[in-house]
Amino acid sequence: MLDPLAPDRVALAEIALRIDADGTIAERAEAGSAAYAALSADAHALHLDPADLLLPGLTDLHIHAPQWPQRGAALDRPLAQWLAAHTFPLEQRYADLAYAESVYGELVPALLAQGTTTALYFATLHEPASLALARTCLAHGQRGFVGLVAMDHPELCPPQYRHPDAAAAIAATRRFIDAVRALPGNAAGLVQPVITPRFIPACTDALLAGLARLAAETGVRVQTHASESDWEHAHVLARCGCTDTEALDRFGLLRRHAVLAHGNFLDVQDLARIAAREAAVAHCPISNAFFADSVLPVRALLDRGVNCGLGTDIAGGFSPSIFENARAAVLSARMLASGTDPGRAPAARGAGAAMRLAFTEALWLATRGGAQALGLSTGQLAPGTPFDAIELSGRGPVLRLDGPAEAVAQRIVCHASAAEIGRVWVAGTCVKA
Amino acid sequence: MLDPLAPDRVALAEIALRIDADGTIAERAEAGSAAYAALSADAHALHLDPADLLLPGLTDLHIHAPQWPQRGAALDRPLAQWLAAHTFPLEQRYADLAYAESVYGELVPALLAQGTTTALYFATLHEPASLALARTCLAHGQRGFVGLVAMDHPELCPPQYRHPDAAAAIAATRRFIDAVRALPGNAAGLVQPVITPRFIPACTDALLAGLARLAAETGVRVQTHASESDWEHAHVLARCGCTDTEALDRFGLLRRHAVLAHGNFLDVQDLARIAAREAAVAHCPISNAFFADSVLPVRALLDRGVNCGLGTDIAGGFSPSIFENARAAVLSARMLASGTDPGRAPAARGAGAAMRLAFTEALWLATRGGAQALGLSTGQLAPGTPFDAIELSGRGPVLRLDGPAEAVAQRIVCHASAAEIGRVWVAGTCVKA
Repeated sequence: MLDPLAPDRVALAEIALRIDADGTIAERAEAGSAAYAALSADAHALHLDPADLLLPGLTDLHIHAPQWPQRGAALDRPLAQWLAAHTFPLEQRYADLAYAESVYGELVPALLAQGTTTALYFATLHEPASLALARTCLAHGQRGFVGLVAMDHPELCPPQYRHPDAAAAIAATRRFIDAVRALPGNAAGLVQPVITPRFIPACTDALLAGLARLAAETGVRVQTHASESDWEHAHVLARCGCTDTEALDRFGLLRRHAVLAHGNFLDVQDLARIAAREAAVAHCPISNAFFADSVLPVRALLDRGVNCGLGTDIAGGFSPSIFENARAAVLSARMLASGTDPGRAPAARGAGAAMRLAFTEALWLATRGGAQALGLSTGQLAPGTPFDAIELSGRGPVLRLDGPAEAVAQRIVCHASAAEIGRVWVAGTCVKA
Repeated sequence: MLDPLAPDRVALAEIALRIDADGTIAERAEAGSAAYAALSADAHALHLDPADLLLPGLTDLHIHAPQWPQRGAALDRPLAQWLAAHTFPLEQRYADLAYAESVYGELVPALLAQGTTTALYFATLHEPASLALARTCLAHGQRGFVGLVAMDHPELCPPQYRHPDAAAAIAATRRFIDAVRALPGNAAGLVQPVITPRFIPACTDALLAGLARLAAETGVRVQTHASESDWEHAHVLARCGCTDTEALDRFGLLRRHAVLAHGNFLDVQDLARIAAREAAVAHCPISNAFFADSVLPVRALLDRGVNCGLGTDIAGGFSPSIFENARAAVLSARMLASGTDPGRAPAARGAGAAMRLAFTEALWLATRGGAQALGLSTGQLAPGTPFDAIELSGRGPVLRLDGPAEAVAQRIVCHASAAEIGRVWVAGTCVKA
């Protein structure tokens, strides 16, 4: 297996695992030990092909589940048109529960086939549809964090797609939390509700403050978008007189394991604030190329101890693959470092080589980084943690899995896709054969 | 099928084709016509699943065949180290014909599985190994353009990996041209030799001039690298007193269908010169993120009528997929347009929205653009042209192929990979089942 030990450190290990009935790794034995021999000889043991490799499961730290039918579409449109003509009308369709069940029934297995064992979802404003997403995660065995979207700002939300007021959105969120927690089969908490103000511009102060109170009361995680684009960053500065993170912090939303999507325009004080609160950033490099006017300096986040993982941001990003987003994170960090415009002198072109992201770091973001952002112990294969893992095949024509750990990590980031994924396990259950 | 009609224009058509014994499209009939009905009813007709789509084959306009074992490796190294410690030592191994046959025997079918029906290869300095690549293309039925690399500069080539002098390199190239043309089974010219000075820095003036004479004498195509990085661009300016294209033109190498890899630092006069000579540029967006310090303004090339296609640049680029390079072309053009550094004001950040590349344009580069660069009539499915095509499946969980032509083109660029490729044909022969 490949162990993402730290952002800049990976190791290869030949191991045998014993998984408890509840899906927890009870024992991990290294090759050569007596325990390894005993576990390997067990009649019920599953064995991997020697050319294959076990990898901790991937976390998608930001995905809009209802936008799945829009993947790979309309990305050439300006943001305002993308939202008004495509995205909001699509999200409104989830008033139809049958439509929601049909889309989510496609989406969740499709993500598991991409190796995404944990997903942090934005759903829609619709309680039945959003609860259907939670049920679908449970049914397919995915570790799902599901947010009923809250948005009530009369000027910045479409009239036909917003909560009537803050109280209604808060009450709906409270009902949703209770309903997810009470779902049959969810006693172990595989699926969790998430308090989800869409982003500051779409929410009134009353809604933001009310959701913060609800988070403090219930202990439920928070997610939102923050400091994504020039427009959004400037809008919050003008409205709140401070940056997104300071505003979220004042409202009480910048809590432990709160996940801020994008964060391209976070400054050093924002980063310090996020680190101090043990909140996190979901880096969505493909989406950022279309809608964020810039590249997140993800290396600066790692250097400052900010929790960080990767998000597909379906459908602002086109790819449901966290591996493909890891590749894009490396590539876009290179383009941040070197700059892009050959018409400028090198020194005036880029932000400098220190902004590069190593392949090992990208793989860490995809696995342990994303899990840690959510406060999970997954993203590693350690005793006492749930067995969330994927089997990667080195037998195809492109991806090779031999050699030193760093080389293997680099090749996984460069070449892995759904085609190389064999079995996938969540909490010890094989969820994709 | 999807027709790439022009860089900014695609069409969907329901067609039936009749293929001649020599692999040429003899007849193309549109649905609804009597000819369509007759062709469809033919007992020997192959039918596509209605959810699938026929696409012209892809052209990889720049790939280093010997670097295949190095795919996805050492990309975090500086260029000088990447060349000296990894790439040149690897290329030297092709003195061993058995090693070459083993690698090329993996590479060519792997590329066909990616939908690459035509590839323009850099091989190595070794004549037996390079001829083995040509034979391997023939054996697997790939349309291959194979260059024996010529490099003789005593200061800029490693002493153990260069031709002893210009005369030796020219004589080797001449022998290679004759040998490829004389290959058994190559009467139809499926595989062609290419005159391949590595790049100006690696070649003496005598070699460049001699290869130009050989090209004029034999009519064989030329390929080289040009204006790739700050270092290379400045080196040629200092040595030749002019840019790469002007120097190549003076030597006589900027010929019709000559392919220049990269070209990131071409200026408007360079572009005019390339267009006037009907030469072409191979855009390698993934590789450029590692070794070119910038993004090729590919839209400026299209606007100025410069022939252009896509290259994987294995192993400077990690992906053997022209589809993945098409995605990267769109993404990197967005990052050129918007810029990347959030620390700069928007106007000082990017080169402007006019630098964006449309999805339709990226698909055109991948198909017709690359073929046209080489002077081929492939990259379209028109009567009188060889039937080089791939079958794309819309039945998987991610790629959808329904809807208007532009939407389908966008989704193909966003989502297509080897996993969605069914059968592949070159010159009417099914080369991948």
